[in-house]
Order: sequence, then structure tokens, then C-alpha cells
Amino acid sequence: MLSELRVYEFLQEVAGPEAAPGGGTAAALAGAQGAALISMVCRLTLGRKKYAEAAAEMAAALERAETLRQELIELMDRDASAYDGVMAAYKLPKETPQEQAARQAAIQQGLQQAARVPLETLAACVETLELAPAVLARGNPNVISDGGAGVLSAHAGMMAALLNVVINLNAITDALFVATARSEMEALRARGDAARATAWAAVCTHLGL
Amino acid sequence: MLSELRVYEFLQEVAGPEAAPGGGTAAALAGAQGAALISMVCRLTLGRKKYAEAAAEMAAALERAETLRQELIELMDRDASAYDGVMAAYKLPKETPQEQAARQAAIQQGLQQAARVPLETLAACVETLELAPAVLARGNPNVISDGGAGVLSAHAGMMAALLNVVINLNAITDALFVATARSEMEALRARGDAARATAWAAVCTHLGL
Repeated sequence: MLSELRVYEFLQEVAGPEAAPGGGTAAALAGAQGAALISMVCRLTLGRKKYAEAAAEMAAALERAETLRQELIELMDRDASAYDGVMAAYKLPKETPQEQAARQAAIQQGLQQAARVPLETLAACVETLELAPAVLARGNPNVISDGGAGVLSAHAGMMAALLNVVINLNAITDALFVATARSEMEALRARGDAARATAWAAVCTHLGL
Repeated sequence: MLSELRVYEFLQEVAGPEAAPGGGTAAALAGAQGAALISMVCRLTLGRKKYAEAAAEMAAALERAETLRQELIELMDRDASAYDGVMAAYKLPKETPQEQAARQAAIQQGLQQAARVPLETLAACVETLELAPAVLARGNPNVISDGGAGVLSAHAGMMAALLNVVINLNAITDALFVATARSEMEALRARGDAARATAWAAVCTHLGL
């Protein structure tokens, strides 16, 4: 698993001359880092008398952020595998018309999977972003810059995932699949942008930005 | 070193109940991931006949991106250490007036270092972003979504670093230090925003966004 690599090794793999792990995996890591920072703010709020009223809310957000981090860590690998699936399909034989048809079908199937996986990453990043407004409004303000960094990271993950959805959709011939995925993607993006705007306003107010 | 942790372990450390590693370290990792993705695009461009004209430019960008990645990996640790320095100063004795004065001076010195380090992270993220317009315009367009993910990651790193500069500047009493750092920060941010806008336009044009 990619998440079992050391951080510097993982970055070497990304930087290396193979297309995977690439942007889709990076998107998932950005989202996971966002979720980790939200978890940290929750943990530094819980158990402090001053923020006792927010305890139940923080505990619930923490539990969700931990689950999302795990999902996003798994998506790092799932994205690289989906890419490998497309590449394997491209390498299928294409001598006979039957082989050509089978290869095209396999490529299209691979591309659909390679669009679905970053769409899941996108959704998990959006869910992470949606935890942020409450956590930043009622969490420990001493770590608001960390929460803000989490928002930036999760939003970058969302947008990087979106690029990976789009580049695959652009090569998919099934118009219904494309339309459905695109509409799901846009709805998620609107939710993520809205959560980011609310959370970011809290960061700016608190830090005087 | 934090970069020697496995990716999932690093994220656990971020999510944990200690304030460091936190947003400043996360900013450096986001920047390092951005630099890694720029390196990948350069590597997938170099040595291909189709992009032979861009070879010298890609080789130069690759060399710079590799150096920036290394710097940003080091900044992950340097940020956590700077935070620990501030915390150590807060724990100094404060019984006598002399102790109080020495503690205040140590806190201020720690805060200045804790502002300087994310300012370096910010600068390295901006330099990463400034590689992107040329790499995305003349690099292999098949991996433009990866390059775009790199831009998003480096820009999120820049903004997360900025939050960590600001939260420390807000507690620093030396007005000249604050004014100088703030003006440096704003100038860097303007450069980073401009590079991001140019690079992002190339991504959007290519992907039909």
C-alpha cells in the first residue's frame, strides 16, 4: 500500500517517471491530510472545560474525520489501481476486429472506473470540508490556523480529484455515464465550495486576514 | 525526521492531540507534493521526440522542482521544531521579574522563528508554483491533470504557510519585524497567485473546464 511507504519515498514515487501514483493519489492524500487536521482541532478542543459545550459536536466530527481519513488513505491506492487498469486495457491485442472491439470495451470500462474512483475522492474531500465550519466556529481557536490548513488541503484535494474525474470523462463515449458523473461532480463541487467559503470566513475573521 | 514516517503514521501524528506536527508541517508537505507532481510532468515530457523542443526547459524545471521538494521536506521538520521552541519558552520559570523578562524575550524570539519558518515554506511553494506555467504550457499534455493537481497542492501549501506566518505575527511585539515579514509575505503571495492563475488557465483550457 502506498500509505505504508515513508513520506519521502511516497513523494519520490509521485515525482518518478511513471504516471501512477499521480494527481488522483495526490488528491486523496491532500484530502486525508485535511481530515487529519480537522481531527487534530477536535482533539485539542475535547476535554477542555472552556469548550465543554461543544464536546458532543467535536466528538461526532472527530469520529467522522477519522473515518474519512481512512477512506481517503484507501483511495490513494484505489486511484493508482484504476489507472493501471486503463493502461492494461490499452495493451490488449488489437490484431483482429474482435480483439479491437474487446480492447475498446475494456478501455471504456477502465476509464469509467478511473472516473468513479476520483469521484469518490471528491465526495470524501467534500464531506471533510463540511465538517470544517462547525469545528472552526466552535473548536479551540488557538489552533484555527491548523484547521484552516485542513480546509485548504481538503479543498485542494477536491479540485485535484475533479481534474482526474474530468480527464477520464473526456475520453468516455457513454454519454449517459458522462452526464450522470458530471452532474454528480458539479453538485459535490458546489457543496465543497460552500463549506470552504464558510470555514475560510471564520479563519479570516479570527486571524484578521 | 517526519518524512521518514510512513504516510499513514505521519497522518496519525498530524491528527493526534499534539499541536505539532500541525498546519505548518502540512503546508510544507502540500508544497513538496506539488513539487513532486511538477517533477513527474517534466519526467514524462523529457526524452519524448514530440516534446524535444521543450527538453532544455523541462530539464531545468525538473532540477529546480527536485531541489524545492527536498527543501520542503526539510521544512516539515523545521516547522515542528520552531513550534516546540515557542512551547519551551512558555514553560520557562516566571517567579522573579528577571525570570519574567527572560521568558518574554524567549517567547518573542521563538515566535519570530515560528513566523520565519513558514515564510520560507511560503517562498518555496511560490517558487514551485512559478515553475508550473511553463511546464504546463509546454509539457506532455497527457498528464496535465497531474500538473494541475501539483498547482493546487502547492497553492494550498502557500496559503496554509501564510496562515502560520500570520498567527505568529499576531503575537509578535516587534513592529518592524512584523511589518517587514508581512510585506515579504504579501509580495510572495501576489507572485504565487499570479503563477497559479496562469497555470490554472492552461489546465482549464486543455481539459475544457
